[in-house]
Amino acid sequence: MNNLFSDRIADVPRSFIREILKTALQPNVISFAGGLPNRDLFPVEEIKAATVKVIDKEGRDVFQYGNSEGSVKLREYIAGRYRTRLGLDVAVDEILITNGSQQGLDLLGKVILNEGEGLVIEEPGYLGAIQAFSLYRPAFLPVPVSDAGMDTVRLSQALQQKPKLMYTVPNFQNPSGITYSDENRRAVAELLAKSGTVLIEDDPYGELRFSGEAKRSFKQYLPKQTVMLGSFSKTVVPGFRLGWIVAPKPLMDKLVIAKQAADLHTSHLPQAIIRQYLEDNDIDRHIAVIRDAYGRQCRAMLSAMERQFPAEVRHTHPEGGMFVWAELPEGLASLDLFELAVKENVVFVPGDPFYVNRTRTRTMRINFSCVDEATIGIGIERLGNAMRRMMKA
Amino acid sequence: MNNLFSDRIADVPRSFIREILKTALQPNVISFAGGLPNRDLFPVEEIKAATVKVIDKEGRDVFQYGNSEGSVKLREYIAGRYRTRLGLDVAVDEILITNGSQQGLDLLGKVILNEGEGLVIEEPGYLGAIQAFSLYRPAFLPVPVSDAGMDTVRLSQALQQKPKLMYTVPNFQNPSGITYSDENRRAVAELLAKSGTVLIEDDPYGELRFSGEAKRSFKQYLPKQTVMLGSFSKTVVPGFRLGWIVAPKPLMDKLVIAKQAADLHTSHLPQAIIRQYLEDNDIDRHIAVIRDAYGRQCRAMLSAMERQFPAEVRHTHPEGGMFVWAELPEGLASLDLFELAVKENVVFVPGDPFYVNRTRTRTMRINFSCVDEATIGIGIERLGNAMRRMMKA
Repeated sequence: MNNLFSDRIADVPRSFIREILKTALQPNVISFAGGLPNRDLFPVEEIKAATVKVIDKEGRDVFQYGNSEGSVKLREYIAGRYRTRLGLDVAVDEILITNGSQQGLDLLGKVILNEGEGLVIEEPGYLGAIQAFSLYRPAFLPVPVSDAGMDTVRLSQALQQKPKLMYTVPNFQNPSGITYSDENRRAVAELLAKSGTVLIEDDPYGELRFSGEAKRSFKQYLPKQTVMLGSFSKTVVPGFRLGWIVAPKPLMDKLVIAKQAADLHTSHLPQAIIRQYLEDNDIDRHIAVIRDAYGRQCRAMLSAMERQFPAEVRHTHPEGGMFVWAELPEGLASLDLFELAVKENVVFVPGDPFYVNRTRTRTMRINFSCVDEATIGIGIERLGNAMRRMMKA
Repeated sequence: MNNLFSDRIADVPRSFIREILKTALQPNVISFAGGLPNRDLFPVEEIKAATVKVIDKEGRDVFQYGNSEGSVKLREYIAGRYRTRLGLDVAVDEILITNGSQQGLDLLGKVILNEGEGLVIEEPGYLGAIQAFSLYRPAFLPVPVSDAGMDTVRLSQALQQKPKLMYTVPNFQNPSGITYSDENRRAVAELLAKSGTVLIEDDPYGELRFSGEAKRSFKQYLPKQTVMLGSFSKTVVPGFRLGWIVAPKPLMDKLVIAKQAADLHTSHLPQAIIRQYLEDNDIDRHIAVIRDAYGRQCRAMLSAMERQFPAEVRHTHPEGGMFVWAELPEGLASLDLFELAVKENVVFVPGDPFYVNRTRTRTMRINFSCVDEATIGIGIERLGNAMRRMMKA
């Protein structure tokens, strides 16, 4: 059957994280490996009430086939929120509802990338984006990100290859937790304005800021070249698989065609439920609860790292989101640390899958959204022990 | 922005049917153009009860991220139903839950088709399949279907090109309403066994047989080379976007990778609701209600056609499903008839979009699932008038 497969799929491995998460399911293992929102914060009763209301009001409608763009009312809500939250003017017909922002990545790859065309990606970068784009076989152009944002010297080198696309998560990046500064955004936007490269701003965590000051969207610096991806996964619930793309009309027309071909439209009922939930509840109050919890958990993690990690281990200081990124001293590999950590009953994600062309890296992603503060203390202590054992050996 | 687009999307037009459906929304217009199940038959109260139960029992679980393959319990149900209904033995890990069977088409195209590789498609064929596969730029090999099934002479010619895939809807085909006979299935399977071509059996309407005898699945004739697509869209509700692929394990492994990259997984809540609905209700009784209604509507349509259509117009005699296919005398084009029919306040879908390489065809798809018997009589009378006006001119 091996001759059956297309070239694009033949070499793609199964998700690394997926395999790791199996280990994480063992009892007694403290997992910093997930990328999940905290389930204890899901507004279960409110969603139930919204669901009953929606089925009573419009059962037959939400059960029938619908339009490919998605619920008009939900798109109106999204446009309104861009206006109030970021001062951005987005038209309803520039918004397409997708099955999570993951589908946004797939559709953008599909309508834009020919094999071998350039795509700038953050290094380290979001694994789901690497997977989605890989299937369109682009030439990945990784550009390093650090506490200040993207390395603009390396970016201008990459732009000489005339890439069609650049993919970024400028707020509390997955995996590193870093945020691009305003100055960095401006500098990146100026480079892109010259090159014409379309910028994808993926912003699943933007509303989850628990310290520091909000930054402007790339859409404000680079309005005509910026495509925005958004999601309800981190602010309401992820299992609904509801996200969206904001794109200029000519690109949107192509995306709608690709969406029709991919699955006709996103499941109706979840769209109607979220819309009703947002109408009947104060989402800002709900998001504040999530932010407070993640902020406390992040502070607990950073302070445990100060106490427990060897001084040579560096890590980021996120102002929001769900992840801290740590780096072992040169010469060590986080994959080796992973094996020691499993013995200590603690797991994380080694950095390798977040790079398009590197293995045995010394970095790792550590999640703080799903573990309470006391358990974070215990888990980081175990991880510190594993690090010390490794560095002694 | 035109330089932005990939070659695969640049030439694909917007859905033709979508444009037609806009006309159909005018009041006073009787529409035989849709491909929708009858919304009056949706089990709204039962689904509402299942929904409340599911949220109460497992709210946090169904709201969290889940696995890419889909709900284990739902896949167990699907495997069980293949066993009882068709005597087929399907393993749970050979089933992937998709966003309607439309996504099954996209994923199969993605993991199998390289540009220019051969794909046998029925002529006329399902528009959604043509759209989904088009994006992978195969060499389409159309093979005619008629009342008996697929033209096996033309099929063996097509197979000389060593196509990787063949796509079929052997029961109550969309758009033609025809069903492959058992003899035809056997003959097609024998040809494919020799060629090694993988057969996709898409069966959204299989349970909607209102006359004649059930036929065997291609999976029974060609077990190792058959991929089955299924859907809850026509038996429960379409707006949930819930379908599935059944594929041999090596192919399934690739499909799961593609599914992860496409959208991580299908929305959880609709999966859980359908599963609960199927557990708590007699689906066979519900399907019998749909079958009875569609059967009555189909008979009303066929008898109106006998009375109202000019004798030179031929049409199929479906034993199930939702569509009749009609053919004007040679020299006429159904697109011209469409313009006359709009003036008579009746619409259908002209045949052109169901062919990969033909225009100004004399065929048309006429839907009977969404219109009551009395209205069918009036609509077919109007269509007959338009035909006569056209043939006189």
